[in-house]
Amino acid sequence: MQAEPLSRAQIAHSLHLFRHHAPLVHCMTNDVVQTFTANVLLALGASPAMVIDAQEAAQFSGIADALLINVGTLTQPRAQAMKAAALSANAAGKPWTLDPVAVGALTLRTEFCHDLLTLKPAAIRGNASEIMALAGMSAGGRGVDTTDTAAAALPAAQALARQINTVVAVTGEVDYITDGQRVVAVTGGDPLMTRVVGTGCALSAVVAASCALPGDRLDNVASACAFMKLAGGRAAVDNGPGSFVPAFLDALYVLDGEALA
Amino acid sequence: MQAEPLSRAQIAHSLHLFRHHAPLVHCMTNDVVQTFTANVLLALGASPAMVIDAQEAAQFSGIADALLINVGTLTQPRAQAMKAAALSANAAGKPWTLDPVAVGALTLRTEFCHDLLTLKPAAIRGNASEIMALAGMSAGGRGVDTTDTAAAALPAAQALARQINTVVAVTGEVDYITDGQRVVAVTGGDPLMTRVVGTGCALSAVVAASCALPGDRLDNVASACAFMKLAGGRAAVDNGPGSFVPAFLDALYVLDGEALA
Amino acid sequence: MQAEPLSRAQIAHSLHLFRHHAPLVHCMTNDVVQTFTANVLLALGASPAMVIDAQEAAQFSGIADALLINVGTLTQPRAQAMKAAALSANAAGKPWTLDPVAVGALTLRTEFCHDLLTLKPAAIRGNASEIMALAGMSAGGRGVDTTDTAAAALPAAQALARQINTVVAVTGEVDYITDGQRVVAVTGGDPLMTRVVGTGCALSAVVAASCALPGDRLDNVASACAFMKLAGGRAAVDNGPGSFVPAFLDALYVLDGEALA
Repeated sequence: MQAEPLSRAQIAHSLHLFRHHAPLVHCMTNDVVQTFTANVLLALGASPAMVIDAQEAAQFSGIADALLINVGTLTQPRAQAMKAAALSANAAGKPWTLDPVAVGALTLRTEFCHDLLTLKPAAIRGNASEIMALAGMSAGGRGVDTTDTAAAALPAAQALARQINTVVAVTGEVDYITDGQRVVAVTGGDPLMTRVVGTGCALSAVVAASCALPGDRLDNVASACAFMKLAGGRAAVDNGPGSFVPAFLDALYVLDGEALA
Repeated sequence: MQAEPLSRAQIAHSLHLFRHHAPLVHCMTNDVVQTFTANVLLALGASPAMVIDAQEAAQFSGIADALLINVGTLTQPRAQAMKAAALSANAAGKPWTLDPVAVGALTLRTEFCHDLLTLKPAAIRGNASEIMALAGMSAGGRGVDTTDTAAAALPAAQALARQINTVVAVTGEVDYITDGQRVVAVTGGDPLMTRVVGTGCALSAVVAASCALPGDRLDNVASACAFMKLAGGRAAVDNGPGSFVPAFLDALYVLDGEALA
Repeated sequence: MQAEPLSRAQIAHSLHLFRHHAPLVHCMTNDVVQTFTANVLLALGASPAMVIDAQEAAQFSGIADALLINVGTLTQPRAQAMKAAALSANAAGKPWTLDPVAVGALTLRTEFCHDLLTLKPAAIRGNASEIMALAGMSAGGRGVDTTDTAAAALPAAQALARQINTVVAVTGEVDYITDGQRVVAVTGGDPLMTRVVGTGCALSAVVAASCALPGDRLDNVASACAFMKLAGGRAAVDNGPGSFVPAFLDALYVLDGEALA
């Protein structure tokens, strides 16, 4: 497998689509990253909405442009609501994205995410341990931190992408995005991003939004990864993990497609 | 209808009352805006407390000075706890405020908020779509974003205010606050506030706090809107949506009644 | 009772242990402080993970290095999950820490926390009203704000520490940490910290992490209090409550043991 780089022209094109379409994203995500996820989507020009009751979630995922399911703080009632929302998104032809936080380490979420795979996510975004566990190739890490590199999980990502016909983004120091055939590599970012909660979870929301855009899904999802790497690299300059957060949102807000292209 | 402006002397007076009385505000709000709501109240000198269990919420709303009910991430158990808290607030003679997030777009919350209107909120704060839906005049928006201007919703706001004898704040580029007779207009703020999650929800918490103050409720609620517009306008200068947040809280903290008056 | 000061050499030593061991902390905390708590732990080099389902929480507290239970937004299902996690932590020999938010003021949490004391927390962190209520010596405050000074609660803290063989940190303008025999006093910080939500709750998470370190628990818990006072004092300089937050996280990140010692 040879990973392709992502051209700056493609990133600029996807950014233009993102801002033009401004997807309304139904986020069913964990308790820790709600605010940051919403602010990341808003900074990029999308509209977040968090709707969590099972009945309302099913109703709303037919209205929104895209759905995110992140199992970081899963409970039984939330699992039911998430499944209802995914079914409704499928019925309405809306794409949904899975973030399998800590899958492999904990039983309830591991079984739930394997069950969700039958509902055909448009994209999956996780770290190496999570993607390997989801593909059935590893026992997973101790928690949200990965113990493997993204490259090591690439075979698992490709197998998973082919198996259920989805786009898988396995992220880390380098992000790899694959549809099972092509593999795109995205570099950049900064280690400081691992000292700020929610950068991965918020990326999953941006991936979810990108699945609502016209054009090639693999390219749009890879560009979503690039938006975060570009803003993260800029925001890490001269900042600690606290001042990183406002700088990162500011950097997303001023990402400039023309300057990129 | 002729909207009155709000005098800087009135804003200064309400700010003085706010800081002097430092209301303890029981916030039952959505998952996305908990931290920001608490920090906005703290920056203005009030005390937030989030208590959500049905039994504890009923107990606490008799202790607190004011109650906020925001249905952004409503669930069935939360609806029960919110209703118990509103009933208890009424029994204790404490004012409660409704933020009908996305009412009109989603069924559970729409029915719940219409039910809550019978419990006589002291104030209601929403955007144009929400207020129109609550007054039964529109089908509402797609989510949290309004598709109407505040001015278009003013007749609905006035009808609603008269119908249940409350103060309605319909907010947008210009905020209109009415008790069904008088209408006060509040200008200021900045479009950047719409790119930061929770500015409207946090305003509702400040409105809830303002209902615990002595003096004219309409003037105090309009002043609450003005605190946010003033701080928002200042914080938007030279900031993106990330750096806006700390700047906004700092601006609320140093709002100066004497300089205003 | 004579309170000992905490030496800078001890603080430096505990900080070294903290960064070297980088504890994985299972945080079962309230809705308002999730993000800030996670970012505080990350800034200090620890790893936070929030797992809340009863089954998963019991599973995860056997994997993590330490557990935090904070009852700020307690519900009946959360109480069950917290108890399951504490039992599992005990079975696995992992330390757990209690933050009894607003105990004394509200019935459900007061009864629950008294019940939890039988499960032998490694540490308890609260304000004066909470510690006095937990020790059965006071009716408690109106909410999260204390109405007593930490010094006034010291006899209650000592009695509680002896009664269940734990370390109690009663925090305020001065923090007192006791195992029932020794008492350590920690000064510093800034009143601005009371205008930012979550500084106390995040301290409890750092205390929880400190209980997983080798060495004397009293010294490590007192050092945890000192990390927050040191960073808080620095972050308060020239900042309002909004800009305090990023500055505080940056200050935790660059706390320098060598410079301290």
